[in-house]
Amino acid sequence: VIGEFAAIAAIAAKLPGPPDAGQVWIGDDTAVLPIPTGHRFLFAADSMVAGVHADLALTGIDDLGWKALAAAVSDIAAMGGDPGWAVVTVACPPGTDLGRLYEGLADSAGVHHCPIVGGDLSEAPVLVVTVAVTGSCDGLPVLRSGARAGDDVWVTRPLGAAAAGLRAYRSAATGTDPSLLSAHARPVAELMAGAAARRAGATAMIDISDGLTADLGHLADASHVGIALDTVPVAEGASFDDALGGGEDYALAFTAPDSALVATEFAGFPEPIRMGSCTAIDGELLFEGRPLTRKGWEHTW
Amino acid sequence: VIGEFAAIAAIAAKLPGPPDAGQVWIGDDTAVLPIPTGHRFLFAADSMVAGVHADLALTGIDDLGWKALAAAVSDIAAMGGDPGWAVVTVACPPGTDLGRLYEGLADSAGVHHCPIVGGDLSEAPVLVVTVAVTGSCDGLPVLRSGARAGDDVWVTRPLGAAAAGLRAYRSAATGTDPSLLSAHARPVAELMAGAAARRAGATAMIDISDGLTADLGHLADASHVGIALDTVPVAEGASFDDALGGGEDYALAFTAPDSALVATEFAGFPEPIRMGSCTAIDGELLFEGRPLTRKGWEHTW
Repeated sequence: VIGEFAAIAAIAAKLPGPPDAGQVWIGDDTAVLPIPTGHRFLFAADSMVAGVHADLALTGIDDLGWKALAAAVSDIAAMGGDPGWAVVTVACPPGTDLGRLYEGLADSAGVHHCPIVGGDLSEAPVLVVTVAVTGSCDGLPVLRSGARAGDDVWVTRPLGAAAAGLRAYRSAATGTDPSLLSAHARPVAELMAGAAARRAGATAMIDISDGLTADLGHLADASHVGIALDTVPVAEGASFDDALGGGEDYALAFTAPDSALVATEFAGFPEPIRMGSCTAIDGELLFEGRPLTRKGWEHTW
Repeated sequence: VIGEFAAIAAIAAKLPGPPDAGQVWIGDDTAVLPIPTGHRFLFAADSMVAGVHADLALTGIDDLGWKALAAAVSDIAAMGGDPGWAVVTVACPPGTDLGRLYEGLADSAGVHHCPIVGGDLSEAPVLVVTVAVTGSCDGLPVLRSGARAGDDVWVTRPLGAAAAGLRAYRSAATGTDPSLLSAHARPVAELMAGAAARRAGATAMIDISDGLTADLGHLADASHVGIALDTVPVAEGASFDDALGGGEDYALAFTAPDSALVATEFAGFPEPIRMGSCTAIDGELLFEGRPLTRKGWEHTW
């Protein structure tokens, strides 16, 4: 049996500490940080629940930690913002491998340049990991609501790898492309692509977390446009259905009026793929001219 | 059955919206906010788990929401800071009364001047409410670690009301002082007292959430001092044990070298009570010269 305060001390010892004496990260009532800089401040949080968002019989508790932080940072990326800091709260049953959970969280925080500066640990019958993140934006963040009829619709990379990876974990297939497995277990938020899209004049942007059709539906609804897709890029090893509704890809979809500027701003990054364009018909989603059903992840009560 | 997006829309309709068009609260990937002002930025989060932190057979789900937000804001108060914004994540089973939960959250956000600007809703076998808050501080925040031998030890009000209130709920006693019940069900973070303590030159501060002896122990450990108490003020209707170890009072304990300055800065507020002083003996807690056992809430795994 380990007490809460000993557990927090063990976690704190594994995480990087503040860069200077003017900051306090873990160990006080709140983290003490410099005032963020930039034009706008960003703030969001996501929870991951064991057995709902992740099956711990398939992937590790470290992967769950990784993904919880990546999903929160992906919301910053979807605004074209830069990550600031994360606070992590963990509610979990006795016997939870906190060391391994925080290894995944810490690795993800390192890759995403979003240090964990505080949080909370408590008892619960099921593991729930919540990551709140701050961010900032040098210019105006890209909302979901700014798309206009005629804008091109882009996605930062082919879709469906996360869903195909989950299927491979479930079937315990050997010889699966490791990039599919890591797309499911260790997704990486597209911070650089989000910032490039913002600089390229993106009018609206969203990360593909629920599924392409569901997320494009959110963007279309918020912008009061329709979206007509000519093509949906499918990741190697994934099916068309994986790409349309699989979710958890954490690629970014965005709309922009000037394709030449998109090409310029994405020079040096993987080239985004043009999927179609925005129409004037509020909320209508089409693929090759036919209605597209909104599919994807949605909790129900 | 209600879907996640319909539930979020219903919640958003009940919460106040942003004060100006430059801000986005609920409805996009992140909240978009002005850059915080002040000298230091504060960031913290707390979770409340149904059945662990609150017994929904005794108090309402609205009370749980209220308390989750109050507990997070209390961490800002314990730094002497001003609240900024809150993001709320809720993981819960089907049938959870989200409307009533968010009523309590919204009422608490109003009282604590800490608007809810975003969050996340997901499915889980148990209700877990997590509130992440930002804050800022016009001067240097009051850490746990600055107490010096010789400083006076103060508490902002008598203790034990929350524990006595919980006991009254459990016994279903009639005629209980409503202030005891509300001390348990609807605690209020001491934002003004925290700021007054900071201006009064407080060297260390903590909120009494785990219990007086546990929390003074944290402060003593962080500051490498001992604490010798002459008196512990007990709230009307509470026992001495309630005051020592009951927890969840969310009063503030602080240390300060200049009692005259404390009196000046607290003019117009309820007068804080001097409980004793700091000693040079690292980590030792005494009451009337005798060792004091650290009691209070601590999760174990």
